[in-house]
Amino acid sequence: MPKFYRKIQGVGLPPGMLAPVTDDHKTRITLFDYNETTLLEKELNSVEESFDYKDTRTISWINIDGRDLKTIQDINTHFDVHPLVLEDIVNQGQRAKLEDYGSYLFFVLNMIRLDEDNGDIDSEQVGLVLGEHFVLSFQEKEGDVFDPVRKRLRDGKGRIRKMDSDYLAYALIDAIVDHYFIILEQIGGKIDQLEEELLEALEPDMPIRIHQLKSQIIYLRKQIWPLREVLSTFQRLESRLVKKATLVFLQDVYDHAIQVNDTIEALRDTLSGLRDIYLSNTSNRMNEIMKVLTIFAAIFIPLTFMAGIYGMNFEHMPELKWKYGYFFFLGILAIVGLGMLYFFKKRKWL
Amino acid sequence: MPKFYRKIQGVGLPPGMLAPVTDDHKTRITLFDYNETTLLEKELNSVEESFDYKDTRTISWINIDGRDLKTIQDINTHFDVHPLVLEDIVNQGQRAKLEDYGSYLFFVLNMIRLDEDNGDIDSEQVGLVLGEHFVLSFQEKEGDVFDPVRKRLRDGKGRIRKMDSDYLAYALIDAIVDHYFIILEQIGGKIDQLEEELLEALEPDMPIRIHQLKSQIIYLRKQIWPLREVLSTFQRLESRLVKKATLVFLQDVYDHAIQVNDTIEALRDTLSGLRDIYLSNTSNRMNEIMKVLTIFAAIFIPLTFMAGIYGMNFEHMPELKWKYGYFFFLGILAIVGLGMLYFFKKRKWL
Amino acid sequence: MPKFYRKIQGVGLPPGMLAPVTDDHKTRITLFDYNETTLLEKELNSVEESFDYKDTRTISWINIDGRDLKTIQDINTHFDVHPLVLEDIVNQGQRAKLEDYGSYLFFVLNMIRLDEDNGDIDSEQVGLVLGEHFVLSFQEKEGDVFDPVRKRLRDGKGRIRKMDSDYLAYALIDAIVDHYFIILEQIGGKIDQLEEELLEALEPDMPIRIHQLKSQIIYLRKQIWPLREVLSTFQRLESRLVKKATLVFLQDVYDHAIQVNDTIEALRDTLSGLRDIYLSNTSNRMNEIMKVLTIFAAIFIPLTFMAGIYGMNFEHMPELKWKYGYFFFLGILAIVGLGMLYFFKKRKWL
Amino acid sequence: MPKFYRKIQGVGLPPGMLAPVTDDHKTRITLFDYNETTLLEKELNSVEESFDYKDTRTISWINIDGRDLKTIQDINTHFDVHPLVLEDIVNQGQRAKLEDYGSYLFFVLNMIRLDEDNGDIDSEQVGLVLGEHFVLSFQEKEGDVFDPVRKRLRDGKGRIRKMDSDYLAYALIDAIVDHYFIILEQIGGKIDQLEEELLEALEPDMPIRIHQLKSQIIYLRKQIWPLREVLSTFQRLESRLVKKATLVFLQDVYDHAIQVNDTIEALRDTLSGLRDIYLSNTSNRMNEIMKVLTIFAAIFIPLTFMAGIYGMNFEHMPELKWKYGYFFFLGILAIVGLGMLYFFKKRKWL
Amino acid sequence: MPKFYRKIQGVGLPPGMLAPVTDDHKTRITLFDYNETTLLEKELNSVEESFDYKDTRTISWINIDGRDLKTIQDINTHFDVHPLVLEDIVNQGQRAKLEDYGSYLFFVLNMIRLDEDNGDIDSEQVGLVLGEHFVLSFQEKEGDVFDPVRKRLRDGKGRIRKMDSDYLAYALIDAIVDHYFIILEQIGGKIDQLEEELLEALEPDMPIRIHQLKSQIIYLRKQIWPLREVLSTFQRLESRLVKKATLVFLQDVYDHAIQVNDTIEALRDTLSGLRDIYLSNTSNRMNEIMKVLTIFAAIFIPLTFMAGIYGMNFEHMPELKWKYGYFFFLGILAIVGLGMLYFFKKRKWL
Repeated sequence: MPKFYRKIQGVGLPPGMLAPVTDDHKTRITLFDYNETTLLEKELNSVEESFDYKDTRTISWINIDGRDLKTIQDINTHFDVHPLVLEDIVNQGQRAKLEDYGSYLFFVLNMIRLDEDNGDIDSEQVGLVLGEHFVLSFQEKEGDVFDPVRKRLRDGKGRIRKMDSDYLAYALIDAIVDHYFIILEQIGGKIDQLEEELLEALEPDMPIRIHQLKSQIIYLRKQIWPLREVLSTFQRLESRLVKKATLVFLQDVYDHAIQVNDTIEALRDTLSGLRDIYLSNTSNRMNEIMKVLTIFAAIFIPLTFMAGIYGMNFEHMPELKWKYGYFFFLGILAIVGLGMLYFFKKRKWL
Repeated sequence: MPKFYRKIQGVGLPPGMLAPVTDDHKTRITLFDYNETTLLEKELNSVEESFDYKDTRTISWINIDGRDLKTIQDINTHFDVHPLVLEDIVNQGQRAKLEDYGSYLFFVLNMIRLDEDNGDIDSEQVGLVLGEHFVLSFQEKEGDVFDPVRKRLRDGKGRIRKMDSDYLAYALIDAIVDHYFIILEQIGGKIDQLEEELLEALEPDMPIRIHQLKSQIIYLRKQIWPLREVLSTFQRLESRLVKKATLVFLQDVYDHAIQVNDTIEALRDTLSGLRDIYLSNTSNRMNEIMKVLTIFAAIFIPLTFMAGIYGMNFEHMPELKWKYGYFFFLGILAIVGLGMLYFFKKRKWL
Repeated sequence: MPKFYRKIQGVGLPPGMLAPVTDDHKTRITLFDYNETTLLEKELNSVEESFDYKDTRTISWINIDGRDLKTIQDINTHFDVHPLVLEDIVNQGQRAKLEDYGSYLFFVLNMIRLDEDNGDIDSEQVGLVLGEHFVLSFQEKEGDVFDPVRKRLRDGKGRIRKMDSDYLAYALIDAIVDHYFIILEQIGGKIDQLEEELLEALEPDMPIRIHQLKSQIIYLRKQIWPLREVLSTFQRLESRLVKKATLVFLQDVYDHAIQVNDTIEALRDTLSGLRDIYLSNTSNRMNEIMKVLTIFAAIFIPLTFMAGIYGMNFEHMPELKWKYGYFFFLGILAIVGLGMLYFFKKRKWL
Repeated sequence: MPKFYRKIQGVGLPPGMLAPVTDDHKTRITLFDYNETTLLEKELNSVEESFDYKDTRTISWINIDGRDLKTIQDINTHFDVHPLVLEDIVNQGQRAKLEDYGSYLFFVLNMIRLDEDNGDIDSEQVGLVLGEHFVLSFQEKEGDVFDPVRKRLRDGKGRIRKMDSDYLAYALIDAIVDHYFIILEQIGGKIDQLEEELLEALEPDMPIRIHQLKSQIIYLRKQIWPLREVLSTFQRLESRLVKKATLVFLQDVYDHAIQVNDTIEALRDTLSGLRDIYLSNTSNRMNEIMKVLTIFAAIFIPLTFMAGIYGMNFEHMPELKWKYGYFFFLGILAIVGLGMLYFFKKRKWL
Repeated sequence: MPKFYRKIQGVGLPPGMLAPVTDDHKTRITLFDYNETTLLEKELNSVEESFDYKDTRTISWINIDGRDLKTIQDINTHFDVHPLVLEDIVNQGQRAKLEDYGSYLFFVLNMIRLDEDNGDIDSEQVGLVLGEHFVLSFQEKEGDVFDPVRKRLRDGKGRIRKMDSDYLAYALIDAIVDHYFIILEQIGGKIDQLEEELLEALEPDMPIRIHQLKSQIIYLRKQIWPLREVLSTFQRLESRLVKKATLVFLQDVYDHAIQVNDTIEALRDTLSGLRDIYLSNTSNRMNEIMKVLTIFAAIFIPLTFMAGIYGMNFEHMPELKWKYGYFFFLGILAIVGLGMLYFFKKRKWL
């Protein structure tokens, strides 16, 4: 289950100091440099190789997987980025935000992915620096949701190769938001399955499954709220970096974020509904059990008592000596028993 | 039950690409071309036939059922519509929205209908393009809620034939909102029925019925919220396409949307109330069952014990030899039994 | 119980068309024509009689009970009222609203009354047209909450005869809002009674009574919200029809509406509290029942078992032959029984 | 418990008419007339005595306990107060409000006190008229929360004697708000006590006590909300009656009102928590009871059955004739009984 | 558990009077006086020693632990601070706030710490006065969360020694907010542990533990809300005391406060989820118990009854004399018993 309370890294450190990076993922740098007609894609061995692409008029997307401090610092220095941006890139676990530094915009985003092994939700912070002709993206580790963007860059279809760096940033953010739908669809599928199971049987692990799905939804909601603000700010930003042609796309991804939010609320309500059904069904189950018990007890306890009477050893019990006493008694038992059955039938317990 | 989590189509595709349209409904194009005195209604065999009506001063309503890409593209090209509009028309499952493209307005709306077979709610996206003298409407498949509008056009009564294209757009939106009332009335009827049944008996399927009605209501609420925004924007839009005479009608349909929303909230509260009653009644039922069990057990268990005493085979049990021991004993049993009854009577269990 | 989901009449009709009026209440027209010194009160046989009073400088209040289309149309034509106002008057079931048509204001209000027979809440739409020297009021049927206003007009005490038509409109709205307090007091009284009963006993119909009261409160809340908006708009309206001297009274009735709203919220909370108490008490009751059962069972079941032992017919059971075996056994029974009682005493079950 | 639904007095009366004052408290008028150096405190026999103090430059605080109409009217006439103010003073049960009449401000406040006898909350309306050199305060009956203010006036310490009439009004309002803290502390103390009791035992009256405390808190919240608005308006009022030096004190009392509100919300949450604990504990209790019953039943019912077997009178039951049949049987009983105990031990029921 | 309802000290006192300080902590004054190159850290014996540092251009941080009135007054007088600030410093238990007095800013903050002994949350009010070249901090008692700030001052690394007094104030506030994360992590850890335990067993103290954690979270939320406002105001303040270079850091700490708030909401939801699981599990547990009871009762009660039949002493009971009657009877018992088992197996109770 996602841990809500994990503090962001670097808390307690002096601002400007960087949290020690403990994970030993090797840093991996990839470059896409393109315009409408050309595309260069390569993996860089060292940071320095990327510097040449900064000042060309082609759009450069430099993606850094890993948090090798030296690499990040080098890039930032060369691309003339504020030290606070560096800190925000290195210190994981932050809220999505957008900061306008004039010559570039800085985004903190949270990329959500499903852990294929255990179905858990995994969040990874992505830092984006959007400059005039370049986009820097900083990820914690390899593996991301940007493959559709890479494919579109390689294919050269659609608008992406014709447009500016702000469209590339949009495309990356859009890929992150789109992934929410995939995750919501998976969670929604699990909720549907739970709903169907709930109509059939009552398993004791259901409350926990409901709780786990709810936790995931709460986690997503916690992520989507600041993202909405970022997208709303991005649209309204009066920056020369945001071209007019991109605005309509920003509105589009903003609409998607709203829709994610709507869906999250609806799923929450559905889960509450399932919990209510579970509780009701548990109560119904209990009623059923108690009915069975009560019917058995109410029929046989009086009969047993009556049999007990004639099992007594009093010397003077005239009935015992009657010739048909036993059969007469059996008849009474049958009448009492059937009477009880009729009583419960009338109460609709049977 | 409505599936909240279905992602909108086209997610994951590059913006500008269209989702592959898998449904093989044949595209059907119908035209209404009218002014106050004349009315032309015909079904068009091909898109091209509609182009002549664009530039006439009569109002043209061109309705396209189906998502045959070629047809939609042709229309859009001829009517000079932005490619993004085309995408929004083809990609189903979006939130209601209104976009002002200057020379025309583009609406995405969600038409809600009841599936007559299973009582489920069915949502279908409708795209509207409102131009100076024409309205284009794009639907996913045949069948819609616009028949009252068509009838008014044919009859020529009321205002509709005298007014501009914005009034036609209003009339279509109004028909969609009006349909909410019909659906709410149906849901309301089911809730009433459930309420009545709940006063009489306690069926185990009631929590599920409550849950299903609640899901439908949540679904409607999810649809009406963005629609309210669209209507509010429509009213406040400073566009030459929205005539002053239409504003009062826009206010009217906006008021209806608000009223739909109020009703949805009230129905939600009612359903919560029913769930509470169900839970209370289940508890009461359990209490009743337990009372029956307890009364039987508390009366007969002591009596059985007493009979058990005199069923023992001790050699020296003086009572057994008393002449009226048995009858004396029966008397004691009667006293104990009646005493217990009195005890439960006093506790108001009987 | 109020039906929340009833659609407003006229939905589905072309705007401008009137819903067929099915109720056959005869239309009844009454006139109050007054200034500070004179008062004319009469019942009019036909609409035409009212026309003379329109242009006099005295204030005219023309009240129409019933929805005879012809009458309403005649009045509206003569008083030069927009056709949409006519529609709103005839189509019942609308949300409260205020529309400024320049030379007159149009109000839709909902008058709430208690049905004396079954204690249900009954809502009736009232249309008000406030002109320079006249107020038209349109009601669905006879019987209203305006008698205090009529009495004040007749008595000539207070301000009402000295002030303008806007004050008369205020007085009518005030009468409607005041009636909310009366209804809330009745509902509050029922809640109090329920609360007292709840402290004494646990009736199975209580959840339903709670639910019914809650439904009424939700219904009132649904009515008071739009009314608040109307009153707020009325105050802030920059219309020559609203005199400065009236503003302080409008603030007053607005304050009352706020207070109604506060009270409704508080009553809702109280009802939720009662439901909680009911549930708790049901659980406590169950605990009590189970305790009784358990005590009986736990005491007598072991005793019965012991008696059963000595009811066996083994040939070699030495205890059976002991002289005081029986009495010794009875002693053991007593000890076990008292031991159980002590055990339950210590657990505070007794 | 506080009655939320009591309508304000005077509802249904023509505005400008006064509700008949039924309580026969004698009206009592007290005067404080002071400046930095002098202080006159006296009880006035009649209204007229107070008129001399109006036009002096000393600050006059005239407090009227009781609602003797004549007295109030005389004062109002002489102090030139609007008739609507008079109405608001006489008609009890209103929401807190602040009205600016230019030459004076009029406050309606609600003074909350604890009824020492039964611990109930008692609300009394206080009307304040703040003029250039005077403050009039109107109370329903004797006894108030203003004694600390009186003491400060008499002592002459602190700022109060040096400042203007607006500071006196502030001091009176501050005394009212301060009293909320005292009441919240008392309620908080009761909640603490309930919490402690809840950890020890489960009394059936607890849900009712929780409900009563919640009702009091809801009542306080209903009072503090409008008071916050009054204080916020008071601060932002651009009136020559509110001196700049007083503003910082107004901010202070506003902060206190916010804090009262925060505390109310926290106490509400705490009470909800207690209710949850109560429900959980009731369920646990039930589980405990059921376990005891089940253990007894599950152990002794099979044993009793076995004893019943050998209590049968079949002629051919070989075991009965075995020499050690009885002891062998007792051994089996012991094994079965201990087996059941082990079974329940393993299930952690014991 | 934190006491929400404790009134702030000094309530009921005349404004300007100070609450009597009852705790006898000795006042302790420490000084940091620094610029980029020099650092003086010393403990002061008396207030007067600090006065020299006020007018130097170095930044002075004077921290006062304890509420010795004389000391505080002396400092305030010398540093020319408004008497109301003095009151706010001495009167504990206030809401966080920020007041702009022109030449200095005054903050009231609440420092939250965990009591290491009992895991309770402890809140201590901190007053900050931010002047041109100095920061005064007033604490109730020794021990605070400012050690990381002190360490950074001593080390001289990072920005702190290079920046102005506003940065020092920021650093102190940041330390307070950072501590929230630590506390949330601890609470989060406890919630995780509870969650794990809940999956394994059902302890009766769990509702109370959930309640206590919830109380702590509510308490934190009550603290973080006003702090957010303070930070938001601090950022937007147009004061020459807030340098442009510091703004980005203020945004940062504001973001942290938002994140604290998000985390608090998520933890609240998680706790509600745990409570739901607990309730569901309790119900499941009950169902299990009842099943065991019912199975035992339903199997053995009929069997016992049948044995009781043949334990009767009727003289004419033919079956008793059959040679294989006993064994035949045992066979019937086995069939009935196994039939019951099959019945419960089919119902999935076993």
